[in-house]
Amino acid sequence: MWGGRFAAETDPLAADFTRSIEVDRALAIDDLAGSVAHVHGLARAGLVSPDDEGALVAGLEALAAEVASGTFAWDASLEDVHLNLEAALTARIGPVAGKLHTGRSRNDQVALDLRLWLRRTLAAVDEAIVGLERALVDRAERDGEAVMPGMTHVQPAQPILLAHHLLAYVEMLERDRGRFRDAWARADRSPLGAGALAGAGFPLDREAIAAELGLGGVTANSLDATSDRDFVVESLAAAALCMVHLSRLAEELVWWSNPAFGWVALDDAWSTGSSMMPNKKNPDPAELIRGRTGRVIGQLTGMLATLKGLPLAYQRDLQESVQPLFGGMAVLESSLRVMAGVIGSVVFRPERMRAAALEGYVTATSVADTLVERGLPFRDAHGVVGVLVAEAARRGCRLDELPDDAFADLRDLPATPDELRAAATLEAALARPRVTGGTAPERVRDALAAARAMLDTES
Amino acid sequence: MWGGRFAAETDPLAADFTRSIEVDRALAIDDLAGSVAHVHGLARAGLVSPDDEGALVAGLEALAAEVASGTFAWDASLEDVHLNLEAALTARIGPVAGKLHTGRSRNDQVALDLRLWLRRTLAAVDEAIVGLERALVDRAERDGEAVMPGMTHVQPAQPILLAHHLLAYVEMLERDRGRFRDAWARADRSPLGAGALAGAGFPLDREAIAAELGLGGVTANSLDATSDRDFVVESLAAAALCMVHLSRLAEELVWWSNPAFGWVALDDAWSTGSSMMPNKKNPDPAELIRGRTGRVIGQLTGMLATLKGLPLAYQRDLQESVQPLFGGMAVLESSLRVMAGVIGSVVFRPERMRAAALEGYVTATSVADTLVERGLPFRDAHGVVGVLVAEAARRGCRLDELPDDAFADLRDLPATPDELRAAATLEAALARPRVTGGTAPERVRDALAAARAMLDTES
Amino acid sequence: MWGGRFAAETDPLAADFTRSIEVDRALAIDDLAGSVAHVHGLARAGLVSPDDEGALVAGLEALAAEVASGTFAWDASLEDVHLNLEAALTARIGPVAGKLHTGRSRNDQVALDLRLWLRRTLAAVDEAIVGLERALVDRAERDGEAVMPGMTHVQPAQPILLAHHLLAYVEMLERDRGRFRDAWARADRSPLGAGALAGAGFPLDREAIAAELGLGGVTANSLDATSDRDFVVESLAAAALCMVHLSRLAEELVWWSNPAFGWVALDDAWSTGSSMMPNKKNPDPAELIRGRTGRVIGQLTGMLATLKGLPLAYQRDLQESVQPLFGGMAVLESSLRVMAGVIGSVVFRPERMRAAALEGYVTATSVADTLVERGLPFRDAHGVVGVLVAEAARRGCRLDELPDDAFADLRDLPATPDELRAAATLEAALARPRVTGGTAPERVRDALAAARAMLDTES
Amino acid sequence: MWGGRFAAETDPLAADFTRSIEVDRALAIDDLAGSVAHVHGLARAGLVSPDDEGALVAGLEALAAEVASGTFAWDASLEDVHLNLEAALTARIGPVAGKLHTGRSRNDQVALDLRLWLRRTLAAVDEAIVGLERALVDRAERDGEAVMPGMTHVQPAQPILLAHHLLAYVEMLERDRGRFRDAWARADRSPLGAGALAGAGFPLDREAIAAELGLGGVTANSLDATSDRDFVVESLAAAALCMVHLSRLAEELVWWSNPAFGWVALDDAWSTGSSMMPNKKNPDPAELIRGRTGRVIGQLTGMLATLKGLPLAYQRDLQESVQPLFGGMAVLESSLRVMAGVIGSVVFRPERMRAAALEGYVTATSVADTLVERGLPFRDAHGVVGVLVAEAARRGCRLDELPDDAFADLRDLPATPDELRAAATLEAALARPRVTGGTAPERVRDALAAARAMLDTES
Repeated sequence: MWGGRFAAETDPLAADFTRSIEVDRALAIDDLAGSVAHVHGLARAGLVSPDDEGALVAGLEALAAEVASGTFAWDASLEDVHLNLEAALTARIGPVAGKLHTGRSRNDQVALDLRLWLRRTLAAVDEAIVGLERALVDRAERDGEAVMPGMTHVQPAQPILLAHHLLAYVEMLERDRGRFRDAWARADRSPLGAGALAGAGFPLDREAIAAELGLGGVTANSLDATSDRDFVVESLAAAALCMVHLSRLAEELVWWSNPAFGWVALDDAWSTGSSMMPNKKNPDPAELIRGRTGRVIGQLTGMLATLKGLPLAYQRDLQESVQPLFGGMAVLESSLRVMAGVIGSVVFRPERMRAAALEGYVTATSVADTLVERGLPFRDAHGVVGVLVAEAARRGCRLDELPDDAFADLRDLPATPDELRAAATLEAALARPRVTGGTAPERVRDALAAARAMLDTES
Repeated sequence: MWGGRFAAETDPLAADFTRSIEVDRALAIDDLAGSVAHVHGLARAGLVSPDDEGALVAGLEALAAEVASGTFAWDASLEDVHLNLEAALTARIGPVAGKLHTGRSRNDQVALDLRLWLRRTLAAVDEAIVGLERALVDRAERDGEAVMPGMTHVQPAQPILLAHHLLAYVEMLERDRGRFRDAWARADRSPLGAGALAGAGFPLDREAIAAELGLGGVTANSLDATSDRDFVVESLAAAALCMVHLSRLAEELVWWSNPAFGWVALDDAWSTGSSMMPNKKNPDPAELIRGRTGRVIGQLTGMLATLKGLPLAYQRDLQESVQPLFGGMAVLESSLRVMAGVIGSVVFRPERMRAAALEGYVTATSVADTLVERGLPFRDAHGVVGVLVAEAARRGCRLDELPDDAFADLRDLPATPDELRAAATLEAALARPRVTGGTAPERVRDALAAARAMLDTES
Repeated sequence: MWGGRFAAETDPLAADFTRSIEVDRALAIDDLAGSVAHVHGLARAGLVSPDDEGALVAGLEALAAEVASGTFAWDASLEDVHLNLEAALTARIGPVAGKLHTGRSRNDQVALDLRLWLRRTLAAVDEAIVGLERALVDRAERDGEAVMPGMTHVQPAQPILLAHHLLAYVEMLERDRGRFRDAWARADRSPLGAGALAGAGFPLDREAIAAELGLGGVTANSLDATSDRDFVVESLAAAALCMVHLSRLAEELVWWSNPAFGWVALDDAWSTGSSMMPNKKNPDPAELIRGRTGRVIGQLTGMLATLKGLPLAYQRDLQESVQPLFGGMAVLESSLRVMAGVIGSVVFRPERMRAAALEGYVTATSVADTLVERGLPFRDAHGVVGVLVAEAARRGCRLDELPDDAFADLRDLPATPDELRAAATLEAALARPRVTGGTAPERVRDALAAARAMLDTES
Repeated sequence: MWGGRFAAETDPLAADFTRSIEVDRALAIDDLAGSVAHVHGLARAGLVSPDDEGALVAGLEALAAEVASGTFAWDASLEDVHLNLEAALTARIGPVAGKLHTGRSRNDQVALDLRLWLRRTLAAVDEAIVGLERALVDRAERDGEAVMPGMTHVQPAQPILLAHHLLAYVEMLERDRGRFRDAWARADRSPLGAGALAGAGFPLDREAIAAELGLGGVTANSLDATSDRDFVVESLAAAALCMVHLSRLAEELVWWSNPAFGWVALDDAWSTGSSMMPNKKNPDPAELIRGRTGRVIGQLTGMLATLKGLPLAYQRDLQESVQPLFGGMAVLESSLRVMAGVIGSVVFRPERMRAAALEGYVTATSVADTLVERGLPFRDAHGVVGVLVAEAARRGCRLDELPDDAFADLRDLPATPDELRAAATLEAALARPRVTGGTAPERVRDALAAARAMLDTES
């Protein structure tokens, strides 16, 4: 393709090493869409005749149909998606195909392709996030009244509603959606016309081409346009963080399905067994989500390391942005869909959750808060209840089972044992956090209604 | 502090290991501001009397003054910033200090502190980014008409203006600013009132407290509020990418100041010498910016790895978000300010740039584009000019110096040797990319005016 | 220091940015030791007189005493540890101090300092690893006969001995020790005499200097010697992996101390409480170990990113190796010592472990293996026992409690119900894996004895 | 496969998500080799009859032949390589195939497969490293007498020989080889017989099986054996560092081939051109090596993040070790081979190197050292030469061209201008560093001879 000044063929080892067709062929439909818009732009600028425009567009559309139907024959001897499609176009429509690359370089071309690919991929990711949100909200509506011990440091802390727990993930996922939206808003610019680095040498109307492609505008500096992979980093960073959120839920599912907890039973269709141990039912999908989070973290890290220290403008190192972007987004989308399947099919065990909530003195804060309401400074109340907890542990009972004599050594308490025992029930403790965002049933109902309303606005 | 149920003192080794005061004392002013707002909230809810409110606020403000003046005596035997300030408050105003922690946990407290810290830090970072943008635009205005060989693959590609090159970095930095703005918009919520995990057990008006703190709203789920460190990850991701941008510029400064290029001479005040070699002047600031980019990438990576797989809600692992956040943002801010100093003081050498632009046949694309304008399909034009390049290399001349006989073997060219030589001058090549974002002088003037106008809207 | 060709003072911002004294002062004793050896080398080469040698060595030793006693006054206006010590030496012994830097650059000097620092740090790390191994073996000897459900996928799998579990960590730690040993063997070379990059310009006997420093030899190429930080990467990689091992144990301690398991109770001295919830006892040390694993992973990552793409020889970016190396090794050493404290003080609950082992049908493999012994192909045996597990789940009993009629539908079994129930007891299942490395009590005793013997060879 | 206790089929989405056959089929020959050894072990233990042993081994060998010839038909509906091969074996030899999995789990099986795969891959990597070393030494012998300006901070520092520069990489690569050797020595243990986690329930002679496989011994703890992926981390860490070394050389090739340097010209067969700019010849292979270094760093990082916090024993997350291991080692091996091709074909330009060495006052240290030899303390000599450098810069000449009057203001110099000019020639400066590892021609000859002798011991 660049024959003029080259005296030797590329060494086969070098050709293998630089070939990207196995990966970047996923850009084919984006590449063709960009080419059609470019042809229209060339025609508007008078750089190709109406006849040539017609031939080029027809040829490109025929290729798009082949790609869509899976019949396009990729040629591994042609380095990348661009050269494959250019060669095929030439084979079909003859030398006029050579006019397609007027005022265009692979540098601005691939920058456009990646953005178009990202647009459709982010749409699919957003849909997958919403799908998981629906699964969470569905389960929160169906099973959310179950009382469980909310945990900090993996130790029982205070009673919460299962719905409150599930809705925490909806919060995280909504932030994830916001990050992807923001990433796209920044990426929503057409680099076409930036040429190899300096700008195309022809009077192309870049804004019109961008509009035809449905993009929000054009990039403002050709050097930046061709060497910018910020959108890859930003998308991978958002993907890594979303995976981290999934990994937190995965970790919980893995441990909660251990018999010691028994809070959930995974559906057989979303579990696997063991080749050796007939007793096993394993939460493999959750484990793989957790494990693949590491992969996406690594893809983000690698991408940043690759970009570090590269001078302007395009460097071949940038090719290395394609694989992590494609790989990372595929892991994210599949993980979201699988997690929705797992959450949708899991069996929650409210009785096991409640039993667990009766351990660990999780109503201690409620007792302390009651003392504060009666005038004891919080630090003193905290100390008093600490003593009660130690006493209950010694007696092997719950706080609401402590007999009167357990309170005898504590002088000048502003509440009676009966009052404190009442404050020590799960229901009393659960009802206290009535602040916005708290786990009191009425607040959780509000939050659930808000989440449902939000989802109802999604198609 | 949690004495009630504990029978033994913390082991000194464990105390050392869990202590965070050396790092989190940087949160002191944020912690005190949050406490004042919390006291007001407690008072509004009738949980502390007006007298107590007055005493608490006065005590907190006195501490704030001590912290601001650097006279506050930190006690390393007290684990963290919260306990230091609580102990100091108690020492100054007595037991009423114990009421401060009514309806508040260190979990929501530190989540608030970090966000307040982030707000003021992001403001400083934004100012530092703008400072670098100003330095770039100043230099683009002063020296930007210099012609240099734009490079791809670190090889001469097409001629560009220095201003075009400098403005590419303004584009990157503007995206960086947008990322930080978006990150803050998502973080701009008060977690106060989320308690330890389940929500405060008192009727606090969280929205009013948030408003007093100047925050845009409250977090919607207490479990999420206390275990969310998305804002740390998002800020570090934006910081890492901004550092990557700086590292690209640093790489260029480092190589351009090598005598082989000689495009820039670093100011003595922004260079260092060698302890052994009397001839050395080294671009250490640029090298350190490039090197510290690795550090911030590592801080982001480590943060993601730390968060991965953590169940809800607060885990002590989250303490590990403080050091990378503080460290990463400090590296970023200082790197921005140092880069502004370097850019502001560097001497550009237009004559060296122009001399370099006369090598490498960087006007070849201009010649090819001229042939295309006369009707040759681009692929053919590319081939023809490749032959001319090879011929010029053989003869040891530039493209615009090729004699007529060099064109003799090329039949049916739609342009004369004179026309092609004219297209092969630097000025002609530079003038071609007149598309939006191109390097043609009029386009660069437009871009420069737009950048200056943007900066003029910044205070 | 490099005044001759510089016309301007370093800008204060640049000076701040390039200063490393806060971090690299930890190298002081190594730097002084290296200087003493260098002076001896200069004297042997006739480059300093015996008198000067005496003065220099006396001056250096006086500084070493000041540093050791903590009385040395560091001057932040002097960039780094080398300049601080050089200035102090000059102040004490006068101009003869200027001879110290004959044939030495900061480039080979700091490369030596880091290696000497690493040698003593790796010795401390090795001791800390052995300390943790001792704690594990001690507990395995004391409590190791407890039967617990070995888990895969966090689900009960087969019964194992607690000692077997604890000894798995000894295996990991022994590999860690090997990695550090190998890292040091590769680093055990003196770079002194490599000069700034090309080799010292004086006839120094590098081998003799290395021998005086107790190093195994000299580096073989001066460019490599001054720009090599492999030993930092290799040490951090070994540290990150060792931290990963600790994080696995930390994760287990965190979950096992949840009441749902209750397999361990952390000692009060190695736990912390909550500022808000009086009931809490949290495994903070284990959580921090788990969390700081992320930090060390990030330090390794950042170091690799920093080194990537640096040309030869020394670049200032290499300064960035100091902080991650110091930070990472400090995290590792403290984590090892804290984990030893946690393991040494934890209370194991064998009765809770045994109760858990009676759930989850963990003896199923033993039953299947028994069928295989009687001639059933393994895949068939696996199927049969799967049916028995499902039957036991339906009946709510253990496998060894299944009544005869549960076996009725299974035809042609080569073993009687009695025999299969016998195989389904914990003791029978535990006794089967008698292969090397298996959990059968006699094998674990062998492994324990071997571990104890290994530890006995350590001082 | 695990049907007994499962009532539902795996959901297709879950099946897709957990499938690994596309990646782990690369383990087929290792898996079959391990199975043959396992069959022999079963036979020795009397667990399969000689007839069954014969049938099983014949079946496995037939499969191995199919795999080797590429005719084996992989079935994507079977999850992984193990199930594919087991199903095929059953199809070919009938139910006796079911005996193969006696005393073996996929957990120990895959642990073995990965180690066998690693053994043959590390052998190929070692060969590729040696191949690059040969290319470097060949070029050092052929072109190594060229004088170039050794650089620190990318600024000219002191003159060196090209051979010295090339040999620095041999040092790095030799350390890389050592790391891989050490990694393998630790991994050289057979996990077979560890079963799922607790050890096989049959009296297998694990040591004999290991010996048959050519492994150095057996793993000592079954929990560790099945959950250990240290060898993946250690191999990836060594690979990442080796890639960092290659990236340093790649960076140099990229910049040195810019016309400003012109120190190297890449061979056409190892370069690529531009689709738009006819003048371009780009060092794509070197750029991709540099870029893919980021990928391997990310794979290491991701692997560590994945392993962090995993409890014992096998977790499905460990499946995520396969892709980064395979991917990382493939990048490394191909990068090594490509770099050997690039180095072997590059044209060095000694005259350009020498011209560059005449700039930048790179002989200044030689002049200073000469003054020191005559008794001036080094710090004073450094100052004097700094003044001479400034003077030469003012006059626009080299140090060895300074006229006598340039020395006039410098009083009491212990050497004459003639002597100092003589010390300021390239040859004089080059000859000074005669220490071990220095760049003096005789030392470089020694180093070259040693490198050649080392290579001659490699097959």
